[in-house]
Amino acid sequence: MTLRERNRLRTAADVEAAALELFERHGYDHTTVEQIAVRAGISSATFFRYFRAKEDVLFSGEDASAGALVALVAQRRDRRRTVAALAEPVCRFAHGSVAGPATSGQRLTHLVMTTPALESRSLRLRLRWEREVAAQLAREAGTGRPDLGQTLAAAIAVSCLTSALRAGHHSGGSIAHLTRRAFAHCADLTR
Amino acid sequence: MTLRERNRLRTAADVEAAALELFERHGYDHTTVEQIAVRAGISSATFFRYFRAKEDVLFSGEDASAGALVALVAQRRDRRRTVAALAEPVCRFAHGSVAGPATSGQRLTHLVMTTPALESRSLRLRLRWEREVAAQLAREAGTGRPDLGQTLAAAIAVSCLTSALRAGHHSGGSIAHLTRRAFAHCADLTR
Repeated sequence: MTLRERNRLRTAADVEAAALELFERHGYDHTTVEQIAVRAGISSATFFRYFRAKEDVLFSGEDASAGALVALVAQRRDRRRTVAALAEPVCRFAHGSVAGPATSGQRLTHLVMTTPALESRSLRLRLRWEREVAAQLAREAGTGRPDLGQTLAAAIAVSCLTSALRAGHHSGGSIAHLTRRAFAHCADLTR
Repeated sequence: MTLRERNRLRTAADVEAAALELFERHGYDHTTVEQIAVRAGISSATFFRYFRAKEDVLFSGEDASAGALVALVAQRRDRRRTVAALAEPVCRFAHGSVAGPATSGQRLTHLVMTTPALESRSLRLRLRWEREVAAQLAREAGTGRPDLGQTLAAAIAVSCLTSALRAGHHSGGSIAHLTRRAFAHCADLTR
């Protein structure tokens, strides 16, 4: 990697860290590109050489989060292809990659899923999670395109997570705990 | 209603009918605003006085479709607030308002849910259905904001419909039949 490339990566990371801090402190809507640029020590013009829009700063962690979810599903202990078997990996994902406070990728995912102005992007993220979990279930079954049952199992499991995120957004409860409760509800609702 | 208002409504309806025929015949992506305008007997400039973009022609039926779904849920025979109790109204909705060939509103809904270029809009429509069904379940329970169980029941019921739409898009099967199969899968997947 050349010095120039390294500098580029470092600046992008600085901008993301600055944006994240401001979004968490003042809210996504009340933060301007100008403020992000000032905090990252660059000009607004430079900001737009790295990101097309304020929104795009939030989506560098998308691939990692989808990858983490699929890896957890692939490694789950309960090898059945039921909704119950997906509770453990999805709750671990909720705990680690969505609600966890640790990495900036995790904080970004949480922001995207709980900011109304980013609804379209968060819906696409949900669809992506559904598709990738369904694809993993299809791979395990040795089939090609996910069938109706696999598509539905993935949609229900991801709905447990997104319902928990929505409930947690209003109540402020723990997302991992709410996700576990959602999976328990599933059994009751479909009895 | 003045003559001018009546003419305005009639022109909007003509444009929608023209667009729908062209979308169904040549596909949404391969139809231009110019072609729609020519078929409706107006200029492209006039088209843009009625609709901001080609996409917007497709969304006049959204309110009616959401209203039809909520009405079916409200009138269902099985008064429980389980996923199984929602199978009958959602399948009726799939048969009548989504897959049915009868009204242009129904044909529009089907186009929106099966055109990849309209993914964001179709995801918002799905979210709207989920929210309105959850709100209906909350009204029945006499609570205010839908709780986690109501949100999840609505999300699972709507997932049965959207999974069926996705499967039907690939296989060409009957959406109402696939929706019924999806509800049957639900019971197996959550056993």
